[in-house]
Parts: sequence; structure tokens; C-alpha cells
Amino acid sequence: MQNRRDFLKTAALATLGVGLSSQQSWGNNQSLFSVNSLGKSAKMKMKFFPYELQLKHVFTVAAHSRKTTPDVQVEIGYDGVVGYGEASMPPYLGESIDSVMSFLSKVDLGQFNDPTQLDDILNYIDRIAPGNTAAKAAVDIALHDLVGKLLNAPWYQMWGLNKEQAPATTFTIGIDTPDVVRQKTEEVAGQFNILKVKVGGANDKEMIETIRTISNLPIAVDANQGWTDKYQALDMINWLHSKGVVMVEQPMPKTQLDDIAWVTQQSVLPIFADESLQRLNDVLPLKGAFTGINIKLMKCTGMREAWKMLTVARALDMKVMIGCMTETSCAISAAAQLSPAVDFADLDGNLLISNDRFKGSVVVDGKITLNEKAGIGVSLL
Amino acid sequence: MQNRRDFLKTAALATLGVGLSSQQSWGNNQSLFSVNSLGKSAKMKMKFFPYELQLKHVFTVAAHSRKTTPDVQVEIGYDGVVGYGEASMPPYLGESIDSVMSFLSKVDLGQFNDPTQLDDILNYIDRIAPGNTAAKAAVDIALHDLVGKLLNAPWYQMWGLNKEQAPATTFTIGIDTPDVVRQKTEEVAGQFNILKVKVGGANDKEMIETIRTISNLPIAVDANQGWTDKYQALDMINWLHSKGVVMVEQPMPKTQLDDIAWVTQQSVLPIFADESLQRLNDVLPLKGAFTGINIKLMKCTGMREAWKMLTVARALDMKVMIGCMTETSCAISAAAQLSPAVDFADLDGNLLISNDRFKGSVVVDGKITLNEKAGIGVSLL
Repeated sequence: MQNRRDFLKTAALATLGVGLSSQQSWGNNQSLFSVNSLGKSAKMKMKFFPYELQLKHVFTVAAHSRKTTPDVQVEIGYDGVVGYGEASMPPYLGESIDSVMSFLSKVDLGQFNDPTQLDDILNYIDRIAPGNTAAKAAVDIALHDLVGKLLNAPWYQMWGLNKEQAPATTFTIGIDTPDVVRQKTEEVAGQFNILKVKVGGANDKEMIETIRTISNLPIAVDANQGWTDKYQALDMINWLHSKGVVMVEQPMPKTQLDDIAWVTQQSVLPIFADESLQRLNDVLPLKGAFTGINIKLMKCTGMREAWKMLTVARALDMKVMIGCMTETSCAISAAAQLSPAVDFADLDGNLLISNDRFKGSVVVDGKITLNEKAGIGVSLL
Repeated sequence: MQNRRDFLKTAALATLGVGLSSQQSWGNNQSLFSVNSLGKSAKMKMKFFPYELQLKHVFTVAAHSRKTTPDVQVEIGYDGVVGYGEASMPPYLGESIDSVMSFLSKVDLGQFNDPTQLDDILNYIDRIAPGNTAAKAAVDIALHDLVGKLLNAPWYQMWGLNKEQAPATTFTIGIDTPDVVRQKTEEVAGQFNILKVKVGGANDKEMIETIRTISNLPIAVDANQGWTDKYQALDMINWLHSKGVVMVEQPMPKTQLDDIAWVTQQSVLPIFADESLQRLNDVLPLKGAFTGINIKLMKCTGMREAWKMLTVARALDMKVMIGCMTETSCAISAAAQLSPAVDFADLDGNLLISNDRFKGSVVVDGKITLNEKAGIGVSLL
């Protein structure tokens, strides 16, 4: 009941309505829902609005640089309780504010009487249109938050997990000049237990060696499909291993699955699939080609499918990591609910933005630290 | 809170202790736990005792006939709440009262502070000794009942299922003389929507044709590995299909997996694995050989692994049925929690005994009907 009361206390009074235009402006602290107490005949109502994430630093992946990430915030209200969700759309993944708003405007939750029936509701959401994985994840996360609040339990608990087993999160050191890399490494080395470096470019060894002048922390590397020759990839992995790298993401293009399988078989380090997978159906074909999979809520449609992917990967004797986009603490905390069950976590997306809307799971001494709040464990800032 | 209060009202006062000898007699209505309110520092305590299930009718499978099934009842108490579990040991599966009591006497739940951490606890249980799947299921079911009661939610709800989608259960017409089969069919045809017949013997066609003189209900057949020639199996399946049979369990011996795969590929009816699988690790190798799997809690160690098997089977695009042994309404209601997610259910085990200890899920007009009680939804009779 604590969560319910918290909500009643903090919820701002606002009228209900349908999808809001992207022109309308919204404050960070504003809830879209009025307080009500509709009881068993309550209907779910969904609101959503664009929310541009402001990056603390210019973000560079391969050819792209940007200072913002498009994002849509979702709130699903039911019987006076609000669940929060979020879609984050890094441009290279193909979704946009417009596509997400358009998808969400087709969602009719009014046909469902019971938010806990996630199987029915999320199957309906998935059938509205193909693709749109971030838009679907936003609804999935908001529903999970709502259901957890209605049942008064955090999701790690309903999944039977021990929150003390949440892992450290990696923190990414961006590709930059040696001076900047040294400075950045000094800045974060005391706060994190494992670093992450994007490799697959021309100055990979310089990056790693620069970091190693400052810190001996374990390093995870993400090659983002950057190596195209399997012998070169394996040589690089051996060198990285000698430098204290502990895992490699997506060493080669997803089209070269046989080469990846060859590398994985020879590799001293575990090899994780990222670009090679999106959803549950992609997991089985990767058995044998990768050591593990990187699950990202924005690519897999959300928490329910993520939990299935984790279950299937474990049944295939594969390792699991959980990753993210730049996101607020909403989607990060949703992903963190699964984290006690994974081998590696890369959940630093909320640390990279300057306009978070939520307080949720936090990083304490480098470790993901879940709270005991119901649902996904967030409150509006 | 309703469930908690119900418990406080009905729980009998009894002292706590360790495993009870099989000589000690127990009434059906007696709870093993005293009412207490230990709060956060509460420890789990487990009790267990043999409970011989009395069968309403002599039960015949292949060469075996019997009038009882050995069973052990388990209760796990925590902070004044009791979770109920059960191990049922049909003799052909290799476990016994002695083996289950011996396994349970090794279980030390006192080392865990939080019953909701099912992942940790059940991994510990599984590592105590290999095999012992019914004993493990008893602990798993009792813990699920306990956790559901502590969180005040039924498991179908935590799994996101809609209880209205629970399927009909099959009801087995035993192998017998035509007169008895006719009489039995008349007796049950109005109460069930789908019948089950054990085939694989000499008088299969006679059995089916006798039933068809009385009822046109769909029939599920279980061949119990009874056919050894794949051509004979396929001919029989075609004939069964022409008689309104809708599915076939385990047509051939588990050692003949290639033959089974051939039959499945040619078959007009879905073919389900029963003897060919026990646990999660057995599911993947059956892809392609069977259309679906039959999940039984007593063989797979309980609800947590059953839910994983269901998830993996769906990811493999396989069908799922849920089955049972002769059991009280305790284990049946535990299995019923998953039933809204399956294609076929064979949960008539509690209907076959005369000394049920529980009221739980019930069969209404042939359909499994879940209640809204927390946990596995049972109360002592």
C-alpha cells in the first residue's frame, strides 16, 4: 500500500486525454493523471509525449555524432495508479518520435479490464504492426510498472531474483584523443568496476593502452561489427585478452555468422551477440555462433520478451548480458530488474543524460543497486 | 491481506519440529504450524509427512495395477504463513516415500532469509542430489504457494496469464471390457469436453469404437511408447484421426527418436512427448521430433522449471500440454496455474482419489477453473 499512497501524495492533477501533439510542452515533474479510485471497473488509459534526451557529452558511434536522443515517455493509469514507460530511439535503429507517436496512437488499452493479463495485452500490442520495438517496449515497461505497483512487488521479486546479485555495470569510455581518454579514465576509474570501450576502428590498441596507463579495471569491448577478417578478429581478441579485456561484443558483421562462429570457437574470451539479434526468435539460431547474447529492451519489445530471451538463452547454455540505449532511469530501472540474472550489464544510459525524469535503480560503487519499490522501482524527479 | 487472515483463522496450533516419522498419523485438517508473527527476521521451516493417496478405482498402466499412490505432503511456514506442496510417486517413476523423506530431511531452508528469492533457493535444492524430481517439486510447489501468499497474488497472475483462458482437462477412460467402457463413458461424457484413452495395446480400436457408440467428444490418446513399428504407428494415427482423436502422446519408445520424428512429420495429428522428456534440458533435442511436450511437475522439479520449459517450447514453436500423476488438489492446482498458457491439459489426478486434502482449482463443465486465491490457490479441506 505504500506505493499507492506515495502516488496519491505526489500525483499532479491533470486531465485525461489521448495522445498529445509533440508541440505541447511538458514539465519534468508533471504526472499526466488525475487521482481517481475507479475500483474493479477501472480502465487503463495511456498518455505519451516526446521527450528529447540531452546528452552530457557528444556521443559518437561509427559515423554518427549527436548531442540528443529522441525519446517518448509513456504513462499508463489504472485505478489511480500510474505505470511509467519509455521509448528511446537512437537514429541508427530506424524508429523516430513520429513513428513511435503514430504506433502508440493505435494502441487501445480500453478493451482490457485487467492490467495483470500481460500475455493477452502484449500479444495484442505486438500484433498492431511489425517492427516498432521501442514503441512496444514503452508500453511493456509502463504495464510492468503498473502491474508491479498494483501487486505491490518489484519485478526482480516476482521473477524470484535476489537483488544483491545485481552485477556491476560497465561504463563506456568514448573514442577520443589519448589526453581526453586519460582524463576520462581518471574521472571514472574510482566509480566503476568494469569499463567498456568501443573498438573496431583504427586506434583500438592506442585506446586500450591509454586506459591501461591509468587503470587496471577489467574492460568489456564492443566491436560493433568492426572486424571483417576472422583471423584479424582472433588476433585482436588474443591481444585484448592479454590486456585484461574480459568479453567482446559483436566482433564481425552479422552477415558473417559462420566467421563469427569460427572466432567464438577459437576465442579465449566470451563473444556476445548484439547487432546479430533483436528478439526472442533470433536467439536459437545463434547457439554455437556466440557465447552469449546482449538483450536490450528497446530492441526486443520490453521486459516480458527480455525475460523469455534470458530463459531461452540459459536453456541453450548461453551467457546473457543486458544493455541499453541512452535512456532515462525509467527504461534503465526496468532493465535493471533482470540484472541479478545476467553475466554482464551495460546499463549506463541514464548516466549519460542531463535531463533524467526519474530516480530509480542507482549505481553504488560501480554495482547496480535495486531499491525495494514496486514495479520497475522509479519515482518522478 | 485476505489470504493472510484466512490462514490465521484456520491454522491449527501445532508445535514446530523437523521431519516426522512415517509412523506418526496426521489428520487431514491439521496444519503443522503454529501461528506466529516473526516479521523480517522470520525463518522458513519445513515439515513433511507421508500421505497415501486412496484411488477411487483400481488403476492400470501396462502391467501395473494398484489402489493407492505413495505421496508426501510438505508444508513450509514463514512468518505465520504456510505454503503447501506435495510429492506424488507412482512406483514406475523410481521415487518412493523413503527416497522423498530422505531427500527432504537434507533440505535446510533456514539458511535463506527471503522466500521470494526462488532462484537461489531452488538452485540450492536442485544441487542437493541428482534425480529426486518429485521431492524437489514438493519443495518448489510449497515455496511457490508461500511466495504467492506473501505477495498476495496467484501465480497465473504473476505469470501474466488470463485465468479465463484455462483449457478443458481431459478425463481418462480406463482400459476395460466394452460394457465397463460404455458405462464409464456415459457417466463422464456430460461432465467433460475431451476424453483421454490409453492405447498401444491389443484392443485399441475396440476401446475407441466402444466410446464412439456413446460420445462424439474429442479424444486424446496416450500410447505410452506402445507402438514399435513406425508404419503401424502412422496407420493407427490415421485411423484414430478418422475417429475424432485430436492428439497423440508418446507413440513409440523414447529410444526410437528417429522413428518418432518420421511419424511426427507424416502425422495429421500433433504428437506430444511424455516419456521422452523430464526436465528443461530435454526440450531442445525434441525439436523436430515431436509437435509438443507434456510437462509434469513431478518429473520436472516443479513450477519454476515448468514455466521455463513452457517458455523454451514456445520459442521452439512447439505445442505444450500439462499433465499430472494421481495427486491431491495441491499439486493439481499448482499445475493449473500454468494451464492458461497450454494447448492441452490432463489434470484429472485429483478426481481419481478419495482422500483429497485440499480444495483448489476445480473442473466446471469440463474446464479447469482457477480461483483468485493467492499462491497456488488451495485451502485445506
